[in-house]
Amino acid sequence: MKKHNFSAGPAILPAPVLKEASKAALNYQGIGLSLLELSHRGPEFTAIIEEANALIKEIIGLPEGYHVLWLTGGASTQFFMIPMNLLNEDETAAYVNTGVWADKAIKEAKAFGHVNVIASSKEQNFTFIPKGYKIPKDAKYLHLTSNNTIYGTQLHRFPKSPVPLVCDMSSDFLSRPFDPNPFGLIYAGAQKNLGPAGTTVVIVREDMLGTVRRHLPSMLDYRTFVKENSLYNTPPVFPIYVSMLTLRWIRKNGGLKGMQRRNKAKAAILYNEIDRNPLFKGTVAREDRSLMNICFVMEDKYAALEKEFLKETEANGMVGLKGHRSVGGFRASTYNALPKASVQALADLMQDFARRKG
Amino acid sequence: MKKHNFSAGPAILPAPVLKEASKAALNYQGIGLSLLELSHRGPEFTAIIEEANALIKEIIGLPEGYHVLWLTGGASTQFFMIPMNLLNEDETAAYVNTGVWADKAIKEAKAFGHVNVIASSKEQNFTFIPKGYKIPKDAKYLHLTSNNTIYGTQLHRFPKSPVPLVCDMSSDFLSRPFDPNPFGLIYAGAQKNLGPAGTTVVIVREDMLGTVRRHLPSMLDYRTFVKENSLYNTPPVFPIYVSMLTLRWIRKNGGLKGMQRRNKAKAAILYNEIDRNPLFKGTVAREDRSLMNICFVMEDKYAALEKEFLKETEANGMVGLKGHRSVGGFRASTYNALPKASVQALADLMQDFARRKG
Repeated sequence: MKKHNFSAGPAILPAPVLKEASKAALNYQGIGLSLLELSHRGPEFTAIIEEANALIKEIIGLPEGYHVLWLTGGASTQFFMIPMNLLNEDETAAYVNTGVWADKAIKEAKAFGHVNVIASSKEQNFTFIPKGYKIPKDAKYLHLTSNNTIYGTQLHRFPKSPVPLVCDMSSDFLSRPFDPNPFGLIYAGAQKNLGPAGTTVVIVREDMLGTVRRHLPSMLDYRTFVKENSLYNTPPVFPIYVSMLTLRWIRKNGGLKGMQRRNKAKAAILYNEIDRNPLFKGTVAREDRSLMNICFVMEDKYAALEKEFLKETEANGMVGLKGHRSVGGFRASTYNALPKASVQALADLMQDFARRKG
Repeated sequence: MKKHNFSAGPAILPAPVLKEASKAALNYQGIGLSLLELSHRGPEFTAIIEEANALIKEIIGLPEGYHVLWLTGGASTQFFMIPMNLLNEDETAAYVNTGVWADKAIKEAKAFGHVNVIASSKEQNFTFIPKGYKIPKDAKYLHLTSNNTIYGTQLHRFPKSPVPLVCDMSSDFLSRPFDPNPFGLIYAGAQKNLGPAGTTVVIVREDMLGTVRRHLPSMLDYRTFVKENSLYNTPPVFPIYVSMLTLRWIRKNGGLKGMQRRNKAKAAILYNEIDRNPLFKGTVAREDRSLMNICFVMEDKYAALEKEFLKETEANGMVGLKGHRSVGGFRASTYNALPKASVQALADLMQDFARRKG
C-alpha cells in the first residue's frame, strides 16, 4: 500500500519520478549501465544537467544574468557561503529572523561581516512573519526565509527592497510563481519540492559575485561553479537526475501556476477543517499560514487526545504528521507532490475523530 | 546487455547493490515509501547510517578514537577543509605531490598555513611515486594520495612517518588491507570503490581535532559531524544508503583481503597482457603500478591504431577505456566491483587485435 507521506523533508516525490529513478538506478535508458555508475563527464549526465538548468530557467522565467548552480551541503552550507561570497568585513547585511533556520543563517553570517537583524518574531516563537520593517539602503543584501518549515509560516508577499534579496527558499521552492528580478541569490536544499537529499540549488545573479576581498577556497567560490557549469568536480549525479525528473513533472503539471493551484486547493481543505473542527486549532497567524507546512495542535481541553490521534493517522497509512518538538501537535507537509487525496484523507480522519471524541 | 564498465569514476558498482538500490528507490523494504522520500531522522535511515559506520569500522579494523563521518563536496572540498581544520597559520604541513589532485590539495592548503612539498614527480608527468624523502618532524601532518587515478600510480607502501598521515584514498579506498594507526585522517569521495557520487567519507582520529584557532563555520567543522553523527543537517541519504550496501558486499566477499585478492588477480591479467603484447606498453614505473587504474598506450610504431582499438573496445561492450587527456591512450579502471571477466575480455581483445594488426 502506498502511504500518505506528510514528511517535512526529505519529502514525497511524484510517483512517476520515483518509478523513473528506480529504473535509472538499475539500467539507465536501456544502455546496460546504471546511472549510479556513469561518468559525470559522459553524454548522459551532460544532457541531464543541461536539461535541469534549462528547466529551472524556464519554469521560474529567469531573466538573463542568472546562473543556476548545483551544490551540496544543504541550506546550512549556504548560511556561511553567502556572506563569505557576498559580504566584506566592513559591510552590513540585513536579516529577517523568522525561524530556527534564519537564526542559524544570522549566526553563521556574523563571522564574515556586520549583521543587522531588522525584524524578528523570535520572542513569539516565530508564530508570525514580521512586516513593515525598514530596509537599510546601505545593506549589501536582505536575507529572507520564504517558508518556515518548523512553524508553518510563509512569506506571502516579498517586501519591496532597495537592496538585492537573498532568500532561503528550501521549503517552498517552485511551489508558486514569483518575480525573480528583486533576487540577487536564491537557494534551496532539494529535499522538499525538488528532489531527494543530496543537492542544493543556488540561483545567483552575476552582479552579486566578485565583490569580496577575502580568499575563497575553490569549492566555496560560486564563480567556480559558474565557470565549470557545476562540474568542477564530481557532482551528486543521482540527486541532480531525480531533481531534473521532478522539474519535468512540474512543467508537465502546469509549471509554477499549476503548482500554486494544487497547493492552494490542498491547503484550503486542511485549514478549513482545522478552523471548523472543535478539537483542533492552528498555531500561527492566519495571514502568514504556509501552503507547504500546515501546523496544528489540539484545543487545550482535548490535548490528552493528541497521541491517540497521531496513532490513528499512522494506522491509516499517514506518515510524518508528528509536529516538530518546538511546536508540538501535528505538522502536515503538503509539498507539490502530495496528492489532494492525501490531504482529504487527513481532513476526513479529523472529522471522523471529532465525531467520535468531541 | 550488461556492459564492461571500466570508468574511472563514478564507476562500476556491484550488480546486487544496483538491484537493491533500484528497489529502494521505488519502495524501501516494502514499507510503501521510496527511500528518496524518507526522513533522515526516521528509524530507516538511522539504521542505515549506523550500519554504514559499523561496517567501515569493522572492515578496516579501526581502533578506538576514530570517527567515521559522511560529508559532501568530494575530495576537492577536503583539500581545503583539512588545512582549515588541522593547520594553524604559523604551522607547516608536508605534502607529497603525485598528481593533479595532490597538486590541488597543495594549492588549497597554502591559504591556511605553511605548505612544504617534500617530494614530487610533477616534472616527470607523475609517472612514478617519489620515495625515500625525509619527513620533517615538526610538520603538523603529512598529506599523501594513495592512488593517482589519472596516471595509474599507487602507493604500495605507506612511509614510516614521525607525524600523522593524512591521506586522499578516493580511488583505492577499501581495495586492500592497511594499518590505520599511522593515519590521523583518511578521506575518500565515494564514487570509485564505495558508492555513487554524492558523499565523501572522512575518517578522523579524535586527537587531530580542536587545535586550530581560526573560526570554522558549523558545516566546515569536522566536530559538528562528530557531535551530530553526520546528521547536523540533512545528509545525502541515497548515496549513503548505496555505500552501505556496497560495504555489505565488501564484507560478504572477504573484506579487504578478499578485495585485494580480486584486484591483484585482475591487475595481473591486464599488466601481463600489456607487457607481453607487442602493440601496447605501460605508462608508469612498474613498481608503482596501480591495481585500480591501469594506464597503457600503444607502442610508437602502432600509435596510429589507437582510435581503432578504442572503437573495437566500444563495439565489444567496453566503456570508459579512453585514457585521460594528460596521459593519452587507454585507462582501464579495475575497482573492487569490476568482474575478472571484464578484464579478461579486454585482455582477449588486445591479443586478438595484436594477431590481426601486429
